[in-house]
Amino acid sequence: MPKAMMHYTLGDIAKRLQAQLRGDADKVINGVASLHSAQADELSFLSQAKFRDQLAQTNAGAVIMTPEDAADCPVNNCLLLADPYRGFVNVAKLFAYCETETAGIHPSAIVGDAAEIDPSVTIGPYAVIGEGVKLAAGVRVGAHCIIGDYCELGDNTELKPRVTLAHHVIIGQRSLIHSGAVIGADGFGNLREGNGWGKIPQLGTVEIGNDVEIGANTTIDRGTLDNTIVANGVKLDNLIHLGHNVKIGENTAIAGCVGIAGSATIGKQCMIGGLTGINGHITIADGVIFTAMSMVTGNVSKPGIYSSGTGILPNRLWRKNAVRFRYLDETMRKLKLGVKSFNQTEEN
Amino acid sequence: MPKAMMHYTLGDIAKRLQAQLRGDADKVINGVASLHSAQADELSFLSQAKFRDQLAQTNAGAVIMTPEDAADCPVNNCLLLADPYRGFVNVAKLFAYCETETAGIHPSAIVGDAAEIDPSVTIGPYAVIGEGVKLAAGVRVGAHCIIGDYCELGDNTELKPRVTLAHHVIIGQRSLIHSGAVIGADGFGNLREGNGWGKIPQLGTVEIGNDVEIGANTTIDRGTLDNTIVANGVKLDNLIHLGHNVKIGENTAIAGCVGIAGSATIGKQCMIGGLTGINGHITIADGVIFTAMSMVTGNVSKPGIYSSGTGILPNRLWRKNAVRFRYLDETMRKLKLGVKSFNQTEEN
Amino acid sequence: MPKAMMHYTLGDIAKRLQAQLRGDADKVINGVASLHSAQADELSFLSQAKFRDQLAQTNAGAVIMTPEDAADCPVNNCLLLADPYRGFVNVAKLFAYCETETAGIHPSAIVGDAAEIDPSVTIGPYAVIGEGVKLAAGVRVGAHCIIGDYCELGDNTELKPRVTLAHHVIIGQRSLIHSGAVIGADGFGNLREGNGWGKIPQLGTVEIGNDVEIGANTTIDRGTLDNTIVANGVKLDNLIHLGHNVKIGENTAIAGCVGIAGSATIGKQCMIGGLTGINGHITIADGVIFTAMSMVTGNVSKPGIYSSGTGILPNRLWRKNAVRFRYLDETMRKLKLGVKSFNQTEEN
Repeated sequence: MPKAMMHYTLGDIAKRLQAQLRGDADKVINGVASLHSAQADELSFLSQAKFRDQLAQTNAGAVIMTPEDAADCPVNNCLLLADPYRGFVNVAKLFAYCETETAGIHPSAIVGDAAEIDPSVTIGPYAVIGEGVKLAAGVRVGAHCIIGDYCELGDNTELKPRVTLAHHVIIGQRSLIHSGAVIGADGFGNLREGNGWGKIPQLGTVEIGNDVEIGANTTIDRGTLDNTIVANGVKLDNLIHLGHNVKIGENTAIAGCVGIAGSATIGKQCMIGGLTGINGHITIADGVIFTAMSMVTGNVSKPGIYSSGTGILPNRLWRKNAVRFRYLDETMRKLKLGVKSFNQTEEN
Repeated sequence: MPKAMMHYTLGDIAKRLQAQLRGDADKVINGVASLHSAQADELSFLSQAKFRDQLAQTNAGAVIMTPEDAADCPVNNCLLLADPYRGFVNVAKLFAYCETETAGIHPSAIVGDAAEIDPSVTIGPYAVIGEGVKLAAGVRVGAHCIIGDYCELGDNTELKPRVTLAHHVIIGQRSLIHSGAVIGADGFGNLREGNGWGKIPQLGTVEIGNDVEIGANTTIDRGTLDNTIVANGVKLDNLIHLGHNVKIGENTAIAGCVGIAGSATIGKQCMIGGLTGINGHITIADGVIFTAMSMVTGNVSKPGIYSSGTGILPNRLWRKNAVRFRYLDETMRKLKLGVKSFNQTEEN
Repeated sequence: MPKAMMHYTLGDIAKRLQAQLRGDADKVINGVASLHSAQADELSFLSQAKFRDQLAQTNAGAVIMTPEDAADCPVNNCLLLADPYRGFVNVAKLFAYCETETAGIHPSAIVGDAAEIDPSVTIGPYAVIGEGVKLAAGVRVGAHCIIGDYCELGDNTELKPRVTLAHHVIIGQRSLIHSGAVIGADGFGNLREGNGWGKIPQLGTVEIGNDVEIGANTTIDRGTLDNTIVANGVKLDNLIHLGHNVKIGENTAIAGCVGIAGSATIGKQCMIGGLTGINGHITIADGVIFTAMSMVTGNVSKPGIYSSGTGILPNRLWRKNAVRFRYLDETMRKLKLGVKSFNQTEEN
């Protein structure tokens, strides 16, 4: 990792974590790292027994571990905690790099009429802020961001450089949007006109809750009449597409390259694997987990883990099986098997 | 939806739609909404019988419906039309929000030498327009757009904020490109050089027709020698990738996250579901429909609906079936079934 | 292709290619094109016998071909080479269009403190360069690029317009990054906190080697502690997602819309087809080829070609087979077949 510019003593870190310190309280820590790459001025952690033998080799200046693991531990400086990884994450936050930015509104930023910008807001170079935009306390707008007319951002929400919000988008508090994300573009609404298509105007907007994170180059389209909604605590990875009027429930996490078609409703606490596709106008219950590349074509009413597709095979073997797939039904009918079970297991 | 700033009387709207008015012609309409969310100053519509019972509950100030549905309708103000939804879409256009923008060329925009910009063109802040670019009457270029050298945009084409066009890209009339789209980047052309790759220069460009819509963060690569072509009336959703020398036929609509590899030719009037993958150097006939996540590895010569993949199952059931897939061919051979049918159905 | 602005005589081109010239050395060539579209002032090539009959129809002013093909060739001006296509690629480079750009640093670009910019560097309009950034000789930074604090770019690396690099990203020499790419955004790191998620800080960065090409709107996330690594000679197409701590080996080529989850390690010389998904924390050997839309859920230890999924079928036939998939295991168990072979072929 790039060398951080912060420094803490081990004693200070122990206090912040309420961890038991074993070793030199005055030891200066300049960063955090994994056991295998940590240097003498860095703090590491041991969270799983399988990494235990790395302790002998590590150059880390100190290690967070459980009291049990500390028993016969070769490392001199230890911080003892019941959950070393969680403790480590909290320490890591101390060393996160903060981009240098001019406080206040950069002179090159353009701010529209009747915008309400809290004095504590930071706006980067070449940002373009529309008419009637409201930016609450502690909001940070990166370089080259575009915020359309009448958008509203809640306290301490951050837009990384080059985020695009179309007009009237609403974002809550403490949310973080990464570079290249486009929020509020028109939904894909087309009406047959002869052989071609007429445009269905997209009059809704996008409502994003508190503590939401949205990944790089992800797109969330505005609703047709009602709004597209991303609830509190939702985490979206990169290159995700949410169609118009999609609703994502609280604390659902979605991995990269997922596509969710218009008017699909996803429950709370769901986890959706990468490259999964979800059809429009269907409903997914709370607590559903889709493994990567799932093909979701209908409602899912019960929580649980769902999967689809088949894993890779050597190409020649795959080819033989794939061509047989087209005869699966025909073959099973000839076998006169599986019909009874069809009814039995239908409810799954 | 965000409150619009336009107002029309019901009588005025009836005239525009050539709809029969039943009720108060002076009733003022401030927006449009669905039956369940419409307020007393908004217009809604009834397009399907299944929503008929919502009529009793709706607060809408007026509703568009068929004369039949109007028979014993509880709503006082109605507009009667044979196709209520189409009528509604036309009204909705009246209420579409227009971003405030300085007319003409924003002083911060940079325009290259020998550019031909019609006086009616609007160019937003920080746009960068290359040498010899031609922008026809009514073209609108959003904030932060980049238009490479010698691009040509036809009448009334609009680039939303932050669209990137590389050099020599040609776009027709009335087309709409959404934020983050990148048109004319180099195609993925690599030539073996030892263990590595040499770059094949991409000397073609991209030609986009009239009335094309291109979604947010979609990418369309330039051709290697000839051009990549998107014909009139094509509608592309978000996060789509079109490789070099792809050709998309008139009025084809493509949903989000689709990938089309180099030199594939897609016919007219096709509909391609989300996350579908289409191999390079193949040809798809006019009028083909692929359902979502289709895997298209060869030519398709007949119109029709095509699909692939298998839908989700509970994970444990899926796991058992997926592992069996590798023995499909072996099992069928042992069964000595399906061979005759193989020949019979091959032409499908 | 757009008309180039360069002109060469056939004799000059012959010298550069060390090709044998047959015909008029003074013939002026203004561009390159395929046999079917070439005009009288353009150079074309014949690389495969199957295109041989196009020679009679071509209007090309000259054609590159093998001495064998030249025997009874109707074209007057020929350049004779053992590998015509490779020769053609080298000529094509002579005609590649170069965007007009102001040399040096555009006055509208913003450069942070303590940046080290070689005098030969070109920086386009509205670029924003952070603190302590190092740009080596011949680096070209396009309009609207954002380069975060302490990034380092090696000799002759080029960022096309609108590339975003977060802080501390390192890129080698002669690499080319296309518009919309976002390199160094936070990895998708979330830690359970009650029903919700806490953010795991992403303290690593991204290291990109020499001669790497990265496509439009592709995203490469920074590492959590160690770095995400893209080795020398890697070629990435558009709209690819590389998660945190992914490692891509030398000269691997990845097609569009591929998603690779966190901490996956991909070998050297691999080729990965479009829309392939690769799970996190797995290892893929050198020389592995995945066909398009492969679903990769585990380690791959041997080089070779691997595939998954099933191709499209007419929708009604597909539907029948797809529903049968759920009974595959049950049916095979009833048949009491395939078990022995299961063990036999397991090692594949």
